[in-house]
Amino acid sequence: MPAQLDLPTADLTFERLYVEVQQFYARHMHLLDAGAAHEWAQTFTEDGTFEAPTLDEPTRGRAELIAAMSRTAAELAAAGDVRRHWHGMLDVRPGADGTIAVRCYALVFSTLLGGAPRLYRTCVCEDVLVFEDGQLRVRSRRVTRDDLA
Amino acid sequence: MPAQLDLPTADLTFERLYVEVQQFYARHMHLLDAGAAHEWAQTFTEDGTFEAPTLDEPTRGRAELIAAMSRTAAELAAAGDVRRHWHGMLDVRPGADGTIAVRCYALVFSTLLGGAPRLYRTCVCEDVLVFEDGQLRVRSRRVTRDDLA
Amino acid sequence: MPAQLDLPTADLTFERLYVEVQQFYARHMHLLDAGAAHEWAQTFTEDGTFEAPTLDEPTRGRAELIAAMSRTAAELAAAGDVRRHWHGMLDVRPGADGTIAVRCYALVFSTLLGGAPRLYRTCVCEDVLVFEDGQLRVRSRRVTRDDLA
Repeated sequence: MPAQLDLPTADLTFERLYVEVQQFYARHMHLLDAGAAHEWAQTFTEDGTFEAPTLDEPTRGRAELIAAMSRTAAELAAAGDVRRHWHGMLDVRPGADGTIAVRCYALVFSTLLGGAPRLYRTCVCEDVLVFEDGQLRVRSRRVTRDDLA
Repeated sequence: MPAQLDLPTADLTFERLYVEVQQFYARHMHLLDAGAAHEWAQTFTEDGTFEAPTLDEPTRGRAELIAAMSRTAAELAAAGDVRRHWHGMLDVRPGADGTIAVRCYALVFSTLLGGAPRLYRTCVCEDVLVFEDGQLRVRSRRVTRDDLA
Repeated sequence: MPAQLDLPTADLTFERLYVEVQQFYARHMHLLDAGAAHEWAQTFTEDGTFEAPTLDEPTRGRAELIAAMSRTAAELAAAGDVRRHWHGMLDVRPGADGTIAVRCYALVFSTLLGGAPRLYRTCVCEDVLVFEDGQLRVRSRRVTRDDLA
């Protein structure tokens, strides 16, 4: 029961691919919410991009991703704010070129130490994922916020 | 990696079926939340039914589904209310007759332009799904609301 | 399309295992939220443990699980409080010894009759699952609450 793939993408069944994407998002978000900036950045390709409505231009490449995420993680830790990112309702579309397009919904929950949990954001996330060395990685991400739609 | 099935239902593995149901709900809800009434109605069978506590009798067939959903979509658009429907915790039970019974939880989130996201409803959804031309469709749906339980 | 497994764990594909865990959590939580204490306790091993921050020591074995859950279910029923437990963002790691380690996020929603639904808790759940007679069961569970982190 290998958790990693050693098959070429084109040979994956749809069920395997779908489950790999779910597993990938789980680990990816666990790293994000743990503030593990370097490990999280490895779940993007070297030149991976992250586009969000609050950014003037996309964050580009692992160095920028690490810098941006480290800054946010430090602010949240200082505020005692625990965030949890959920991806769900995944529409997974494998492309002929080996990339995988995913459109999904995203929720962000926020809880302050001793406080009530709060629904912080509802978003839509559009990813292009690729396999590198048998691992899924984000090549590009575009997030839109429902409150800014 | 075909996203559509060309196999008879009885030949599907449980893992393939479970993943197909997840993928189906993703696209089904993306269409609903986008206000795409006609495309959404195609994800029901021609005589598909939708039963909910706020309805005197079930909505029946695509024409009625389109009419009901178009009305709601127009009201939400006018109010600037973005809704997101999440299905989760899917209990998927394939039947000997080729139908698939699903019992799952449903969440509805509501966000007004510039406002905070809100948990709008928590529900239970009981579907009977069938494959038609290799596509999953809802033959009957029964939704109960936790606040009216 | 069998919903139960008759294969030795080691022969399961990752996609089958991942889907079995999702299906297991769905039924497990449906039983919990329905207040079905005896059936729910059967989804733990005979000596299964449940560790939570509000417990001085772990709940141990089915008799204790039934007692604890029955008490809670009676209180919730008396209060007219409908709870819904969601597990998501599952990181599923099969071990060489046949156990399955799962780390996931957990949400608890609470709705009072006639009231607005409420996000009650956000948690992290760490389970060790095992197959017994072709059925997944919880051997140990450790839940942490984000508000007490």
